Amino acid sequence: MKSIPVSKVGERPLIGLLTKIFRGGSNAYVIVGPGHDDCAVLEMPGDEYLVVTTDMLHRKTDFPMQMTGWQIGWMSAAVNFSDIASMGASPVGFLSAIGLPRDTDVSLVEDIARGMADCAKMCGTSVIGGDIDTHDELTITGTALGMVRKEELLTRKGARVGDKVCVTGFAGSAGAALHAIENNIPVPDRLLKALLEPFPRVYEARELAGSGFVTSMMDTSDGLALSLHDLADLNQVGFRIYESLLPVHADVREHVSSDPQEIMDLALYTGGDFELLFTASPEILNQLFTTFNLSIIGEVVEQSAGMRIERDDGTNLSINRKGYLQLGN
Amino acid sequence: MKSIPVSKVGERPLIGLLTKIFRGGSNAYVIVGPGHDDCAVLEMPGDEYLVVTTDMLHRKTDFPMQMTGWQIGWMSAAVNFSDIASMGASPVGFLSAIGLPRDTDVSLVEDIARGMADCAKMCGTSVIGGDIDTHDELTITGTALGMVRKEELLTRKGARVGDKVCVTGFAGSAGAALHAIENNIPVPDRLLKALLEPFPRVYEARELAGSGFVTSMMDTSDGLALSLHDLADLNQVGFRIYESLLPVHADVREHVSSDPQEIMDLALYTGGDFELLFTASPEILNQLFTTFNLSIIGEVVEQSAGMRIERDDGTNLSINRKGYLQLGN
Repeated sequence: MKSIPVSKVGERPLIGLLTKIFRGGSNAYVIVGPGHDDCAVLEMPGDEYLVVTTDMLHRKTDFPMQMTGWQIGWMSAAVNFSDIASMGASPVGFLSAIGLPRDTDVSLVEDIARGMADCAKMCGTSVIGGDIDTHDELTITGTALGMVRKEELLTRKGARVGDKVCVTGFAGSAGAALHAIENNIPVPDRLLKALLEPFPRVYEARELAGSGFVTSMMDTSDGLALSLHDLADLNQVGFRIYESLLPVHADVREHVSSDPQEIMDLALYTGGDFELLFTASPEILNQLFTTFNLSIIGEVVEQSAGMRIERDDGTNLSINRKGYLQLGN
Repeated sequence: MKSIPVSKVGERPLIGLLTKIFRGGSNAYVIVGPGHDDCAVLEMPGDEYLVVTTDMLHRKTDFPMQMTGWQIGWMSAAVNFSDIASMGASPVGFLSAIGLPRDTDVSLVEDIARGMADCAKMCGTSVIGGDIDTHDELTITGTALGMVRKEELLTRKGARVGDKVCVTGFAGSAGAALHAIENNIPVPDRLLKALLEPFPRVYEARELAGSGFVTSMMDTSDGLALSLHDLADLNQVGFRIYESLLPVHADVREHVSSDPQEIMDLALYTGGDFELLFTASPEILNQLFTTFNLSIIGEVVEQSAGMRIERDDGTNLSINRKGYLQLGN
């Protein structure tokens, strides 16, 4: 049989292959199964579903060298809580499996644990268990659990033509910070923190899920463009996004780039922001989300209208299917 | 500050340090928290608790070179389902995070996925989600979820003086198989399977939890001796074990060793069996567990009587605190 390395296949097709194998199983608890969404969703007695997600991170690929132990721990928890948030759920626990090189300093491990514990606390929950192991490269797999009222569960599915497209927080901040680090551009600490200490939007998620306006939701960890394409494919819709509405932080314009094209590319095509991308019925315009930062960046259109961004200069461009992926391309 | 590598500290003390940090958090859902047991236990609405566990495995340290892809997948799921079983719970789902070297053959990944899916199916559940990542060494973190009726939850705590000490299946089979592989001793395939395809005792666990006789339970993944010491420490009791009662498979005596001392050492001090070790009220003697293989190997005694094994020759020995540990010693 011909040998095909995974790097040639790419992450998404490989997930497709595995999902097909995993979906062969039957499980009466499953509401949302593998390959469908940010979390798996399980039936539970009572008014709530259980949601669960797992994510493996590695020293070289996932933790920028600048990261402290505390930030490594925080990040490991945050990426998982962001997935919990994207289902509209409240976190109820976090587990971590940590693979440590044998020469790792004990104080670094304690800092990592404190970072996890602090992130869990900030998300209203705690670290409930885990595993330690020896390994060549520092590797952390986090697992987060959440609960959501059955009628408030949000998934990637549900966007309708005419809905508004919204994001929490800013787009491209983490990517801009990484770009600044890689090119020795001095930037304020608060911009670096967008990359090194992302804040999972668990409280915003609860408010959005409770509002009844949101029709589909996911997080932007792979970048805004790729997330938009994921939503578009699944819902068989198109998107019309407006450059002028992209929420780019002032620090990015001031310190990282003054070129509109480059700023737009950072906002669309870089990952690591862990914001919530969602579609909502237009009534959301009448709802004042005063407690958090929310931007309407465009609207859902017919699939045939494609995925386009209106530039400030009146032209419009296709949004490419590219962003942060682990394997291939 | 003085630098101390984790290899100097050892696995158990390091877990102790982290557990202290994690227990600082508050979480109204937690029934059993970090560092206490094989799984974390969370409060749920209705009659059942949720139990959850996670375990990271690596190519070099956890998957013998003989293992096929299917067996690697099976093992990754089995070790986690064994933890679910040890709480008396029924599995309700499995997630896997897989770190793959870029040159991994796609067909190997599919075999791993099939092994996981088959193990989950055999345990009455399915793979509900996961994550794929690139990594230097094949690394798999599994997470298993289970449910158990609140009055049937079994933990490591509860052993009482006078209770019987029991194990499912055989002791030392996986260790004997590993010894055979390392020393080129030819053994039957069924003995190798004890090492390469351990069968998590999920059905036995349910029957034991439902019986009402079991007072404490855990799995023997780190070896019988270490598991006995864990139970003894937690319950402040001692154990009297009988060499004649240790369930050693005939294949081990026939193919691996005929030396009683060596056979006893395999049964006590090697890991990888994934059987259930439990204490039970003496009434268990009157209960016929006809559906599965169960051995009474001794009894719970006062802590002051220590942890001893009666040899067939009438002498008795202390059972050492040693077995399979990942870090240090």
